[in-house]
Amino acid sequence: MRIGVVGGGQLARMMIPAALDVGIDLHVLAEETGSSAHLATSFIGDYKDQRQLLEFAHDKDVMTFDHEHVPMANLRAVRDSGIPVRPSPEALALTHDKVTMRRTLGELGVPQPRWIVLSSSESADREISELGGYPCIAKKPVGGYDGKGVRVIHSLDECSDWLAEGDVLLEELVPFSRELAQLSARRPSGEWKPWPLVETRQEGGVCSEVVAGVDGFDDSLSIKAREIAQSIADGVDVVGVLAVELFETPAGELLVNELAMRPHNSGHVFTELSLTSQFEQHLRSVADLPLGSTDFVAPYGVMTNVFGGVSGEGQSLAWESIPEAKIHNYQKEPRPGRKAGHVVIVGSDLDALVSKARQARDIVQAAG
Amino acid sequence: MRIGVVGGGQLARMMIPAALDVGIDLHVLAEETGSSAHLATSFIGDYKDQRQLLEFAHDKDVMTFDHEHVPMANLRAVRDSGIPVRPSPEALALTHDKVTMRRTLGELGVPQPRWIVLSSSESADREISELGGYPCIAKKPVGGYDGKGVRVIHSLDECSDWLAEGDVLLEELVPFSRELAQLSARRPSGEWKPWPLVETRQEGGVCSEVVAGVDGFDDSLSIKAREIAQSIADGVDVVGVLAVELFETPAGELLVNELAMRPHNSGHVFTELSLTSQFEQHLRSVADLPLGSTDFVAPYGVMTNVFGGVSGEGQSLAWESIPEAKIHNYQKEPRPGRKAGHVVIVGSDLDALVSKARQARDIVQAAG
Repeated sequence: MRIGVVGGGQLARMMIPAALDVGIDLHVLAEETGSSAHLATSFIGDYKDQRQLLEFAHDKDVMTFDHEHVPMANLRAVRDSGIPVRPSPEALALTHDKVTMRRTLGELGVPQPRWIVLSSSESADREISELGGYPCIAKKPVGGYDGKGVRVIHSLDECSDWLAEGDVLLEELVPFSRELAQLSARRPSGEWKPWPLVETRQEGGVCSEVVAGVDGFDDSLSIKAREIAQSIADGVDVVGVLAVELFETPAGELLVNELAMRPHNSGHVFTELSLTSQFEQHLRSVADLPLGSTDFVAPYGVMTNVFGGVSGEGQSLAWESIPEAKIHNYQKEPRPGRKAGHVVIVGSDLDALVSKARQARDIVQAAG
Repeated sequence: MRIGVVGGGQLARMMIPAALDVGIDLHVLAEETGSSAHLATSFIGDYKDQRQLLEFAHDKDVMTFDHEHVPMANLRAVRDSGIPVRPSPEALALTHDKVTMRRTLGELGVPQPRWIVLSSSESADREISELGGYPCIAKKPVGGYDGKGVRVIHSLDECSDWLAEGDVLLEELVPFSRELAQLSARRPSGEWKPWPLVETRQEGGVCSEVVAGVDGFDDSLSIKAREIAQSIADGVDVVGVLAVELFETPAGELLVNELAMRPHNSGHVFTELSLTSQFEQHLRSVADLPLGSTDFVAPYGVMTNVFGGVSGEGQSLAWESIPEAKIHNYQKEPRPGRKAGHVVIVGSDLDALVSKARQARDIVQAAG
């Protein structure tokens, strides 16, 4: 089984161990040499160039992705050439264009924030008051990630630059009590398997830590989250890992914030905490192999992201003070704000885990 | 940090995920293309050829090994060229030549079976009767593994072919109650960390399954095993993973059977069961990085070896019936008796784990 992955970031990198366990040949298309996934990189090229993408794909059994930026026309061209694209272009359309996502989720009856699409900066006072008025959230429909392409606005002036370029998605500002993520995976056969719900914590629109535990949420909330995830997975025929980012309102309602159809930062904790990592489950899904157990091996797990860079010195210092910390180093060139690695700690004392995972992160980052 | 590994087998293969986690550049010298560790293979060559070995080693920060077959002169030549060799040639001498091992363990006062060296087939009745008489164990001092180069003999005639080639090591046949393995790792600084003792079960001289559990052995036995391992590790300045294979006698005595100074089949279970795998600990040791926690994440773990080959069909069938089974496929060409993969299951019901791990192994093997 030869799987082609478009994108050479840390998600492709972390598919490599899973591919080695399962016995899959993984081939990565990276944009440049020296990427995080360079070990499995067999093709340096531009996924936006259809000819290059087809050249990479032609001898693969199935194609999948480390990000959602491949143009839809190129995804269709690969499929038309006879190579399965998983998830499908139709499913990926939801992660490619946030307006398509909102419209489709609406058709599926999935709970989500109120939203409108603006195509000009002409006054839209009535529609905006129906969202709950200002402040509200403005999003560029295509290309945003990790807080990029998303703004809290207090007047349309604050997104007039985006409106000059095209449509802007406006969403109500949800007064949430927590942000959660429901990860699951689905095979072409329809087999679908969720992990337990996790809590994600953001800083500046970027995930900073994730807390997971078998008894982290009451049953009704977990059931609701699974129902939402499964209705999306089945509704648009998702193949692979599906991450559903959710707002939990003070009233206990769940609203879909964002979607990803690939391994996702909110699922990194499962590599240590679950019997099956999201990377292995993603590869099994797209290869149409039976899915693994998502049971947890410990009561709790905490993941903290390392930003900027990971230095060898910081890594050693963190290991010395916290030998149970699992430090993942993506081997990226340091750059301010860049996701450079992450720390996971699993165990039974949640408060201690959170404190240690943050401490390890701080040490790794400080020296980084 | 660039680490060079000599040998392209499954042990080198399983160092790749560890290197990716830690952020180490791993480079493998394999004898042929398409080896189990091909993903990290940067050099195809012959480790017995000193020139080729030096060429592979010259730009590495440290050199380590997937097997013990590199000629001593070549190990010394690499070190003389200025590249650290870990473990050192002096330590590796014990795994290279079983007579050196027996002699050194004797000097260290480590308990072991009685042994003698025979250099001819002339009668040695008195010495053999001091071993406990026939049957006894004959071993070729150099080059044996996995039951090869080891025989139970009832007269010297049964090893006369080996005697014609050179010295033969004779050891008493120990009437053991169990076979155990004590794994640990040691850094150049002297930091040493053991995993809990495990039980290994052999068929035809080859490990077939390993059972591990935090409370698998009474304290005095665990302490004794750790003392033996540490006195060997410190005594010959081992750097890296040290596997000490032990006989437990009915009287509760421990005797050293074999040694390995690299990740070892008896430690595969730690990848899922321990916070730190033996592959990560080996790389950290030879890179002189702080060692990770060896605590277990579950009460028990069971590993079964898959021999012959792993077929995709068998793997899928095993996953379908036992979703919690972690199946490792080394992607080797099928060959009778070849170690082709392994299964690990962790949990709290030991009997169920053993039964499921065997069942998964049988399914994977049967279709393989």
